[in-house]
Amino acid sequence: MDTTTISHIGEKAGGSATVQGWLYNRRSSGKIQFLIVRDGTGYLQAVVPRADVPAEVWEAAERASQECSLRVTGTVREEKRAPGGYEMSAQSVEILGPSEGYPITPKEHGVDFLMNLRHLWMRSSQQHAVLRVRSEIEQAIRDFFYRREFTLIDSPILTGSAVEGTSTLFETDYFGDKAYLSQSGQLYLEPAAAAFGKVYCFGPTFRAEKSKTRRHLTEFWMIEPEVAFLRFEGLVELAEDLIVTVMGRVLERCQEDLKRLERDTKKLEAIQKPFPRITYREAVQKLAALGFSVKFGDDLGADEETALAKDLDRPLVVSRFPAAIKSFYMQPDPEDPEVVLGLDMLAPEGYGEIIGGSERIYDLALLEKRIEEHELPRDAYEWYLDVRRFGTFPHSGFGMGLERFVAWACGIHHLREAIPYPRTLKRIYP
Amino acid sequence: MDTTTISHIGEKAGGSATVQGWLYNRRSSGKIQFLIVRDGTGYLQAVVPRADVPAEVWEAAERASQECSLRVTGTVREEKRAPGGYEMSAQSVEILGPSEGYPITPKEHGVDFLMNLRHLWMRSSQQHAVLRVRSEIEQAIRDFFYRREFTLIDSPILTGSAVEGTSTLFETDYFGDKAYLSQSGQLYLEPAAAAFGKVYCFGPTFRAEKSKTRRHLTEFWMIEPEVAFLRFEGLVELAEDLIVTVMGRVLERCQEDLKRLERDTKKLEAIQKPFPRITYREAVQKLAALGFSVKFGDDLGADEETALAKDLDRPLVVSRFPAAIKSFYMQPDPEDPEVVLGLDMLAPEGYGEIIGGSERIYDLALLEKRIEEHELPRDAYEWYLDVRRFGTFPHSGFGMGLERFVAWACGIHHLREAIPYPRTLKRIYP
Repeated sequence: MDTTTISHIGEKAGGSATVQGWLYNRRSSGKIQFLIVRDGTGYLQAVVPRADVPAEVWEAAERASQECSLRVTGTVREEKRAPGGYEMSAQSVEILGPSEGYPITPKEHGVDFLMNLRHLWMRSSQQHAVLRVRSEIEQAIRDFFYRREFTLIDSPILTGSAVEGTSTLFETDYFGDKAYLSQSGQLYLEPAAAAFGKVYCFGPTFRAEKSKTRRHLTEFWMIEPEVAFLRFEGLVELAEDLIVTVMGRVLERCQEDLKRLERDTKKLEAIQKPFPRITYREAVQKLAALGFSVKFGDDLGADEETALAKDLDRPLVVSRFPAAIKSFYMQPDPEDPEVVLGLDMLAPEGYGEIIGGSERIYDLALLEKRIEEHELPRDAYEWYLDVRRFGTFPHSGFGMGLERFVAWACGIHHLREAIPYPRTLKRIYP
Repeated sequence: MDTTTISHIGEKAGGSATVQGWLYNRRSSGKIQFLIVRDGTGYLQAVVPRADVPAEVWEAAERASQECSLRVTGTVREEKRAPGGYEMSAQSVEILGPSEGYPITPKEHGVDFLMNLRHLWMRSSQQHAVLRVRSEIEQAIRDFFYRREFTLIDSPILTGSAVEGTSTLFETDYFGDKAYLSQSGQLYLEPAAAAFGKVYCFGPTFRAEKSKTRRHLTEFWMIEPEVAFLRFEGLVELAEDLIVTVMGRVLERCQEDLKRLERDTKKLEAIQKPFPRITYREAVQKLAALGFSVKFGDDLGADEETALAKDLDRPLVVSRFPAAIKSFYMQPDPEDPEVVLGLDMLAPEGYGEIIGGSERIYDLALLEKRIEEHELPRDAYEWYLDVRRFGTFPHSGFGMGLERFVAWACGIHHLREAIPYPRTLKRIYP
């Protein structure tokens, strides 16, 4: 059977077409029924005039209930006021699969109720739009790195050692040994950068954190590039370019979804280079002036992040943090050795940290010293130290949380709606 | 500093360039040193003539040891006999990071030794080539589905129920409950097909199998499309198109890597549509004629698969298996209800099953009956059954193992070399 997806219905304008999908909504005047059909690629209004169709077609249209699957054939015409710009005069309506008592109705439901029905909730127009934007963002990210000739290196999920302690790791039995679900691919990417030059990984990562905030998922996707011979300034540029390119693509290709989400696209259009920059030292001063009791050596929390990025229309790059509050592998700033060449990128509108990265220590002795200072298990790092033993090289990389970027692009409040099947402290179903 | 990657060195022909990389190999005549430099994007021969360079440059070139990192500046010229087609007359050689006692030498090493050094072994030209082909294949697969307007739906890794028994599942504690690492995204994709029409997932999957064969990894990547309203014939075509398109892209863009792997590319050029097809019933007859003791209802093992595909130059599609030996969700063949509309695609050259898929049962009552017959826990499937309760629809999907495809494309024997950091029964390091 020759069917058309709704996204391509315009190609059939003036002629006949058949679409298959589900009943999203309906209106009826007694003489005319208006069926809104969705097929995952778009929405189409099918008009069924009682006077012009056989009795069984009218009756099928009347019988069609929310989310039943159906096949509709008719004439396609342009109709500026219709969603998508086209409308169908139906000549035939056939119900394929009934739907009785569909649990999600136009009335308000609680989030827990909807999350228990996540497998159905994703049919709803807003959830559908968010996940379409997510899909576009993922391809845009892969295209970005592919065009820049990065090699994709999938880092492993199952890892044999808990290099920074087990407190936030999921553990599993691995044929009699202990294994842990990865929190980052970085340690695996640094050796790969020596083999391929520019590499990235992009896969699920896990954090067994007992946080219940809207910013935390236990399973989330992370993008991590790692580049040989790249210094800190180049890393900041790479991060900027990624954000600007991907946001540009969302604006270019997701207009309908953004509209459905009532996203203020002006806010996204403002995301252009260069991003404003501030050092940690400057940030501490600024925060103190704003009345925060923050001093050198303190971590910046969510409130501080929001205050720093509040008046900005694009992400803020905070750099050069105290070594003591950052990971052991970050390269000290040669001009200010108390701080490291690390960056956090804070999204505007309160979306918080979307990128964290640094230049990496490439001197073997210094890295060994840091491992000792941080009281980390030296044995677990032996293979990682090999990168510094055999042809060491300056290199830099960062990590970007996918769901945070998606939530920001879509203007949604909670990360749990930015992933198809969210996993949180209280949720592993469906 | 203005540096050039070796993949772009041709753009500098006739002029000067600086490359940064690692010493891959060297030859010396006493008067001239030939340094083969690799930077992950290619190999470049740098020629250092004693008579024409300052003493410290000659001395640095002499000091350069295997896998030290270095920076070389010189004049680029075309040289047909050189790898990559270009050569550099070095004016400056600078060692950035020394390398003493690099453990992988040109002599033969055992696989276990090399796998313990996987983080270094990936610098070796053959391993490097395989992982570059893998990276290209992954992007080609994503492009294939993107161009066909599939929505990427990341299925979850952590799942709350062991739907087909726990014997091959990795288990973890999830804040007091049990959770399992996913073996397939299919159950999560079927509901998504009702929301988006055409969907796919592509991520890591896990099997805690005690198999030690060259065909098994405990962690591997799988591609799973699922398409609403697609029937069995369309599914076979989708699988064919994917294989042909991706193999064509490998041939188009990975010639150098295939050459380094000494892959017979004629074998890959032969992968064209249509693929030969055989039903399970026909396969049993054919195998019996070849002397195998196989009867209707038996599973086809690796030996049987190899025998069926042996004389073919492209994959073989085996279809319509007995319902009893296949998964509970496969749609019966209306013309032969003892068998199901399932397919296995067997690669030539003994690479075995690369794709397995089926049309799915969409009738609620039949699916409930099957769950009972297979003695599966009905409760765990309630949400999955919703797909049949609310607007059920015919749909089909398949799974393709990435590492099997990579091994086949590269002509390598063992799956463990087709993934950056392999995980097998005996290996979770590095």
